[in-house]
Amino acid sequence: MKQVWGLLEVVAPAAGLFDITDRIASWTNEERFSSGLLTVFCHHTSASLLIQENAAPAARRDLERYFARIAPESAAYEHDEEGPDDMPAHLRTALTQTHLGIPLQDGRLWLGTWQGIYLFEHRQRPSRREIGLHLIGE
Amino acid sequence: MKQVWGLLEVVAPAAGLFDITDRIASWTNEERFSSGLLTVFCHHTSASLLIQENAAPAARRDLERYFARIAPESAAYEHDEEGPDDMPAHLRTALTQTHLGIPLQDGRLWLGTWQGIYLFEHRQRPSRREIGLHLIGE
Amino acid sequence: MKQVWGLLEVVAPAAGLFDITDRIASWTNEERFSSGLLTVFCHHTSASLLIQENAAPAARRDLERYFARIAPESAAYEHDEEGPDDMPAHLRTALTQTHLGIPLQDGRLWLGTWQGIYLFEHRQRPSRREIGLHLIGE
Repeated sequence: MKQVWGLLEVVAPAAGLFDITDRIASWTNEERFSSGLLTVFCHHTSASLLIQENAAPAARRDLERYFARIAPESAAYEHDEEGPDDMPAHLRTALTQTHLGIPLQDGRLWLGTWQGIYLFEHRQRPSRREIGLHLIGE
Repeated sequence: MKQVWGLLEVVAPAAGLFDITDRIASWTNEERFSSGLLTVFCHHTSASLLIQENAAPAARRDLERYFARIAPESAAYEHDEEGPDDMPAHLRTALTQTHLGIPLQDGRLWLGTWQGIYLFEHRQRPSRREIGLHLIGE
Repeated sequence: MKQVWGLLEVVAPAAGLFDITDRIASWTNEERFSSGLLTVFCHHTSASLLIQENAAPAARRDLERYFARIAPESAAYEHDEEGPDDMPAHLRTALTQTHLGIPLQDGRLWLGTWQGIYLFEHRQRPSRREIGLHLIGE
């Protein structure tokens, strides 16, 4: 049994869902484990992680619109000194994931055909995000 | 330290919460670990996982109604070619869990008295779902 | 490779977010791992876990108000015999986390500067909550 650690830097040009499946799968494949558990951890409170539909761009846009609607920038927040997109970013992070656990089987991430791993950026300005990768297994 | 892998097939006759605690506990008990970490992973983007109240069927029905209300089939979605229950399924998946991590202690899953593990099926038609089980420990 | 298990008792005087970062970090530091994976597990269905903004008390209050609004006590629930705060507690738990996975790197939890770990108590009455800690690594 062994473990390894990796760091992914993701530049998000604006708010939205960004597919990071290939980068995470590449890193995992290079570590040459046959089975184990990958933990993906987002180092921030205004960006989050999501496993979602990877085929239809329209589904991605519906998701973005949905979270913009249920945690809107237009609402009144007490915490507003960092701009109108700051508090909704924390709310959308709370409703989605800061970490994902994905099993590794037969040397590959055990993701379904339609499952992609997304960074969900919630700030409007361009952001540089750190994603930690911890892999344990053999 | 060791790890094992298992696969659970769950047939969901319709949308709703389905208790899979016993099947997961049985599989875990047969592996005879004394302590460790179980990861439960749902291989789909229109079904998800939830740890919830296991005693009151009314609480389960309230949960189903709540998610039907906050991510309704009646809303207008851009991604609608797979039917009115498709996009709400992705939204309800995003709001709940694709994976769960549950510690194993004294040879048993460390679940609270009222905690059950549920497959949350979001499609109306009958579905066959794959749930991966990864157990690491000793 | 090794694993350890710990138990944290948290007394929540009322509903709200309670910072448990220091207690979890202290326990982790005492175990003297250099790297690994910490799993934090909440043993209840009417309290949950959240990684959130640790600097601004206003952000914490906005979060509490947001969940009080989207899963309100004032709504009609079928499961209501344990009081008006019971079913909203289950809904708010479903929308947040029962478990967290946090990597350990260079002997410390790999948390961002602004990330705190919170117990999110959803019942109004004082509650005593059990949080399980499972650490695997070396």
